[in-house]
Amino acid sequence: MNLLRHETLRSFVFGLFLMYLAFINVLVAQEHPSLILTKIGVEEIRGHLGNAPVFDATLSEAKKEIDKEIAIGIKVPLPKDFSGGYTHERHKRNFLVMQKAGVLFQILKEEKYAIYIRDMLFAYEEMYLDLPVHPQERSYARGKIFWQCLNDSNWLVYVSQAYDCIYEWLEPEERLKLEENLFRPFADFISRGNPQFYNRVHNHSTWGNAAVGMIALAMNDDELLERALNGLKEDNLAIGAKDDDGGFIKVEGQKTGFLANLDEPFSPDGYYTEGPYYQRYAMYPFLIFAQALHNVKPELKIFERKDSVLLRSVNTLLNLTDADGEFFPLNDGQKGMSYHARELVTAVDIAYHFGGNNPQLLSIAEKQDRVVLDDTGMSVALAIRDGKAQPFQKKSVKFNDGPKGKQGGVGVLRYGEEELTLVFKYGAQGLSHGHYDKLSFSLYEKGEEVIQDYGLARFVNIEQKGGGNYLKENASWAKQTIAHNTVTQNETSHFKGSYEIGSKNHSELLFFDASDNKVQLVSAKETNAYPNTEMHRTMAMIKDKSLEKPYVLDIIRLSSNKKNKYDLPFYFMGQLMETNFEYEMPQVLTTLGDDNGYQHLWVEGKGAPIMENTKLSWLHSKKFYTITTITELSDELFFTRLGANDPDFNLRRDAALMLRRKDTQNTLFVTVIEPHGHYSPVSEFAVGANSNVAKVAVLYNDADYTAVVIDLHNGNSNLLIVSNQETSTLKGHVLNVGDKAYKWEGPYYFNQIN
Amino acid sequence: MNLLRHETLRSFVFGLFLMYLAFINVLVAQEHPSLILTKIGVEEIRGHLGNAPVFDATLSEAKKEIDKEIAIGIKVPLPKDFSGGYTHERHKRNFLVMQKAGVLFQILKEEKYAIYIRDMLFAYEEMYLDLPVHPQERSYARGKIFWQCLNDSNWLVYVSQAYDCIYEWLEPEERLKLEENLFRPFADFISRGNPQFYNRVHNHSTWGNAAVGMIALAMNDDELLERALNGLKEDNLAIGAKDDDGGFIKVEGQKTGFLANLDEPFSPDGYYTEGPYYQRYAMYPFLIFAQALHNVKPELKIFERKDSVLLRSVNTLLNLTDADGEFFPLNDGQKGMSYHARELVTAVDIAYHFGGNNPQLLSIAEKQDRVVLDDTGMSVALAIRDGKAQPFQKKSVKFNDGPKGKQGGVGVLRYGEEELTLVFKYGAQGLSHGHYDKLSFSLYEKGEEVIQDYGLARFVNIEQKGGGNYLKENASWAKQTIAHNTVTQNETSHFKGSYEIGSKNHSELLFFDASDNKVQLVSAKETNAYPNTEMHRTMAMIKDKSLEKPYVLDIIRLSSNKKNKYDLPFYFMGQLMETNFEYEMPQVLTTLGDDNGYQHLWVEGKGAPIMENTKLSWLHSKKFYTITTITELSDELFFTRLGANDPDFNLRRDAALMLRRKDTQNTLFVTVIEPHGHYSPVSEFAVGANSNVAKVAVLYNDADYTAVVIDLHNGNSNLLIVSNQETSTLKGHVLNVGDKAYKWEGPYYFNQIN
Repeated sequence: MNLLRHETLRSFVFGLFLMYLAFINVLVAQEHPSLILTKIGVEEIRGHLGNAPVFDATLSEAKKEIDKEIAIGIKVPLPKDFSGGYTHERHKRNFLVMQKAGVLFQILKEEKYAIYIRDMLFAYEEMYLDLPVHPQERSYARGKIFWQCLNDSNWLVYVSQAYDCIYEWLEPEERLKLEENLFRPFADFISRGNPQFYNRVHNHSTWGNAAVGMIALAMNDDELLERALNGLKEDNLAIGAKDDDGGFIKVEGQKTGFLANLDEPFSPDGYYTEGPYYQRYAMYPFLIFAQALHNVKPELKIFERKDSVLLRSVNTLLNLTDADGEFFPLNDGQKGMSYHARELVTAVDIAYHFGGNNPQLLSIAEKQDRVVLDDTGMSVALAIRDGKAQPFQKKSVKFNDGPKGKQGGVGVLRYGEEELTLVFKYGAQGLSHGHYDKLSFSLYEKGEEVIQDYGLARFVNIEQKGGGNYLKENASWAKQTIAHNTVTQNETSHFKGSYEIGSKNHSELLFFDASDNKVQLVSAKETNAYPNTEMHRTMAMIKDKSLEKPYVLDIIRLSSNKKNKYDLPFYFMGQLMETNFEYEMPQVLTTLGDDNGYQHLWVEGKGAPIMENTKLSWLHSKKFYTITTITELSDELFFTRLGANDPDFNLRRDAALMLRRKDTQNTLFVTVIEPHGHYSPVSEFAVGANSNVAKVAVLYNDADYTAVVIDLHNGNSNLLIVSNQETSTLKGHVLNVGDKAYKWEGPYYFNQIN
Repeated sequence: MNLLRHETLRSFVFGLFLMYLAFINVLVAQEHPSLILTKIGVEEIRGHLGNAPVFDATLSEAKKEIDKEIAIGIKVPLPKDFSGGYTHERHKRNFLVMQKAGVLFQILKEEKYAIYIRDMLFAYEEMYLDLPVHPQERSYARGKIFWQCLNDSNWLVYVSQAYDCIYEWLEPEERLKLEENLFRPFADFISRGNPQFYNRVHNHSTWGNAAVGMIALAMNDDELLERALNGLKEDNLAIGAKDDDGGFIKVEGQKTGFLANLDEPFSPDGYYTEGPYYQRYAMYPFLIFAQALHNVKPELKIFERKDSVLLRSVNTLLNLTDADGEFFPLNDGQKGMSYHARELVTAVDIAYHFGGNNPQLLSIAEKQDRVVLDDTGMSVALAIRDGKAQPFQKKSVKFNDGPKGKQGGVGVLRYGEEELTLVFKYGAQGLSHGHYDKLSFSLYEKGEEVIQDYGLARFVNIEQKGGGNYLKENASWAKQTIAHNTVTQNETSHFKGSYEIGSKNHSELLFFDASDNKVQLVSAKETNAYPNTEMHRTMAMIKDKSLEKPYVLDIIRLSSNKKNKYDLPFYFMGQLMETNFEYEMPQVLTTLGDDNGYQHLWVEGKGAPIMENTKLSWLHSKKFYTITTITELSDELFFTRLGANDPDFNLRRDAALMLRRKDTQNTLFVTVIEPHGHYSPVSEFAVGANSNVAKVAVLYNDADYTAVVIDLHNGNSNLLIVSNQETSTLKGHVLNVGDKAYKWEGPYYFNQIN
């Protein structure tokens, strides 16, 4: 049967075949599979089968899934839909299925998987050359199979692996046909055909580069590989052009290609400037192509590049998760995405296998409960079987942003086993997925949001919601400054919401110090978000030993050359319990403002402080929280509720307490955010329902130092003095506060009085 | 030491002592403990210790807890606070702790527990006689220790058990002193002193009766026992007086006391008319006092009374839970309360021990993961140890309401293992905790609310929220008809929101039929909620074999003698995905109305149907849902959001879609509520995101029959014909629909066409 396949075709192309024979010989000279699976690797895997529980279970799941797909039959519909729609989802499924079928063919040696892939590939081959660009016109770089080249690139990254797996099983002329009519034109289309997509530093391009590179390795095509690694030599793109997310397409002097994409958006700390949600997405092409390069072109030493940044970035990414493993939704990030995603399974397995067998990664792999079906996954499965897993320790940590780590960053303060986690953002713009939220923060207790970051305004791949793509509220709300827990000046977003300006600037870290469990601090400044206004925020996580839980002290210093209106919201999650100020609830709801995100906020209540400390308590997820903030009697207090000017109900109906301070030049916002107590609807016991904070007061404040004291109801008192200037060189400090002199070294002084 | 205790006191009361000697002898003649623990029982328990894992673990927990309390020391503060406040919570803790300490004393035979109880009791004894009524004035029956007699009764129910446990260990004159200065005055205060609390049929009285009865048994006081069982002979209460929840205090001819409370609010099915949340609360005094009566007065055969209604009611209560074991929040019910509550641990253990050892109860006990520290708990623990547990099977079931089961009821339709659960309410008013929500429903997928019932407006025991008591929004919102998924006529609640009228009426079941898994139905009528308007609602849970999940068909027939405005809301939970109608979102939010709950609803959007089937899809908890409802082009559609006129943020910001049909006399609301598909933020796959329903249409409708057809996109079609009249006697039906004749027997015809 096998020998007789395509007999007719064989005669037909025989002449052609002879002409290409020399060429084909070269192709055959490279062993297959070689990209992700390798000949030797497959033999080793087969030797361990039945004796590596997680691997065996994953394999069995994959077999079940693919056998079901084979039973359904091959479906390669004419491309038509947006993400979430039938043709999109079917083609997406196809590439995932082909990749898995390839692996099953290699490991199980059952020919039905090879046949399935071949037949599906030829269904694509038959269609591809005549296929126009995708009918949906929204993208700046439309694909052919999908509405954007990005998804076409996804397809090729996965399909290259499938092709590699059945390469030797295919007839030479079948390979020839597939390469000539499908793979090369495909690679050309997403690269030369779409330089605005391919030739930039962006996660889109990373996918494009990896796609071209993967198929280049599979086909042993050096020209394509060069195009993958170093980009197009010529692209005819105009400097300053932008994509449909508002991101720059071409920047003067910018290198392109996979290596540039690896060097540029990753900081030396392995922080990816777009944020963890997109790092997760970009991770897969980075790592899978790196693995292929490692296997086929070991001389490139790709995993060692930039001080092994790829492998270290996996650790960074895992550290940017809450206690449930969900990524902090910095910039455009969809909540709920976590290290359980398939991209992270690949990342963890590769990082374990190629990155020195860190046993802490195994505990993440255990939670993922599946492995990649290749050498790396087998490494992990065997190590888990042998009981080598150790708990993954997440600690307080900062990650510098920028290619050289000089563009601010993200600081994460954690107490205990993620009992309280503060995420503080003082980095660069984050390319086109960045938000205008300098010095913003979010707060978690275990896996629960206490003070939330909104994340993106999008329902990824849900067709009903704008074709599963970014919604207009992403720009009008989610990216705006007022959507974040930071200061908005004069109802205008940072950098006037301008990507051009934002991209040129970043905040500066003043200090990060998590060496003392009693008080951990991060402090940063932003001087460009509003010209002539300096914003300086210091956030401390303090644990008073008399309290069950730690709390956060938040100090914002604003210095300007003129009077401004400052708005500072806290997007607290949960049901309001109590306030110590008076407010009115209007009989008719109107919006907080007209633009820059303000048009999306209803004013549910408006009030004013009646004392120096304004308090708000709330209940969320059976736990109590209180904000205690120092206010002036002239401050305004707003209860806002999201959802105005949202005709499609795209936004969540989330609440905030917003402080407004008007006609003010220089000022200080000082706030304590305090988790305390818990409630059970089963026992109906409320424990520790009241705030422990009796008073927060500023004892000293000038350009050099700010001193804040927090008095607790139980008589304890915590005093923090922070330096407001760069102090790395200045070792010794002396400051008189009231009638007492304080002396210390380093950026802060802290004292607990019991 | 023991012999020398209170030497001074002993001399002092010696004369008195002699006088009471005969009396004391009578007391001593009854063995102690005898109420819950018994002498024989304790010996048996001690014999099993170390060999009954759940019991041992519970005991160890209790020991840890009480040892900690003993270390803290005795605190009996002067009563001052509402629930949630310090003195309230401390006294509550005290009675729970004393009861447990008593058990520990008996089982562990360590005298420190007896000493602790005795010392605490004398702290109360010293205070009690001089104690004025509680300073908080909100209750219609203020207590002394707590702000309401109800909580004082809680105290006595628990403390009676503690007293029983150390009875024999105490000196006779100690008993004398406690009984004279504490227990008898206490029992008198909550009974004779507060007949408006004690002498009625209400869960408050049940606690009062049980409290008096428990201490009566402990003291062997027949007069008090008679007062507990049959109430006060004379109470001087006026007929028609009401409590602060609006409930009647005295009803003409009403029997009182524990036995009346047992006979009256429980239907023969074991349904408690106030609803499961209060049944759970009332359960404890019912069962614990019954257990004590069973032990001390076996001749009363209390567990056999009214066809063993007490034991059967435990099964009823367990059936009124969602897949997570949380009670359906019918009437005033706090969400989150579940069969994990301590009252249910008692209930399950007693029902197992005294109710024929139903092995399904053991699986609930396993989930509770603790047992009562007495004979019943030991029975359960040993049976679990011996592997006797079987899964608790919840099925579709109806429970009749009313003392004789003649006042409507509650129907629960379930598919599979609670994959879809419909709760349909057609019962009596439910005493003072009842809501004006005839023919209302709620819908669950597993443990998740799909279409919610609001429950109560109260944060039980959270002091910040109105002292932990009912909030004014409970009356202005939660009890109103518009807060429920049923029809409001002319913006007025059922029975004009009048408790007097509501209490005299109930809905009538037409039929309940869950015999066929493909179509399960419940149908009921309400003719008194609006005089001269008949409301008839039939709800069917239908499983089309081509669909993954079942759906609900909802048919409401309204017949009136005049034209009305009908409002029908669906309180869907989650984020709106898509509609097929047009609506406007106002620039300024105003309320839906001025009264009867309407004043609490903001109108977020207003629109009108543009076709015969109006659709709304939403996403909740990673699952998709769609409502498809038959509309007229003159209908109005409102998106409402709760929260207006809520100055203390007491209400949740929940959404609804509300249909309004104006100037209409007779009409039909026909709606399909359909769970379909799911979404994963991790894989970002949306599966089955679109409704399967192509069309819902009424094929026939008159006073006798209504025929509805549901056409699916896959070509399947489901036809349901329901009888609109009482049909128990009418066996055969013939109906021509279009050109086809249908013949059937019973209340409905159903046909699936594939």
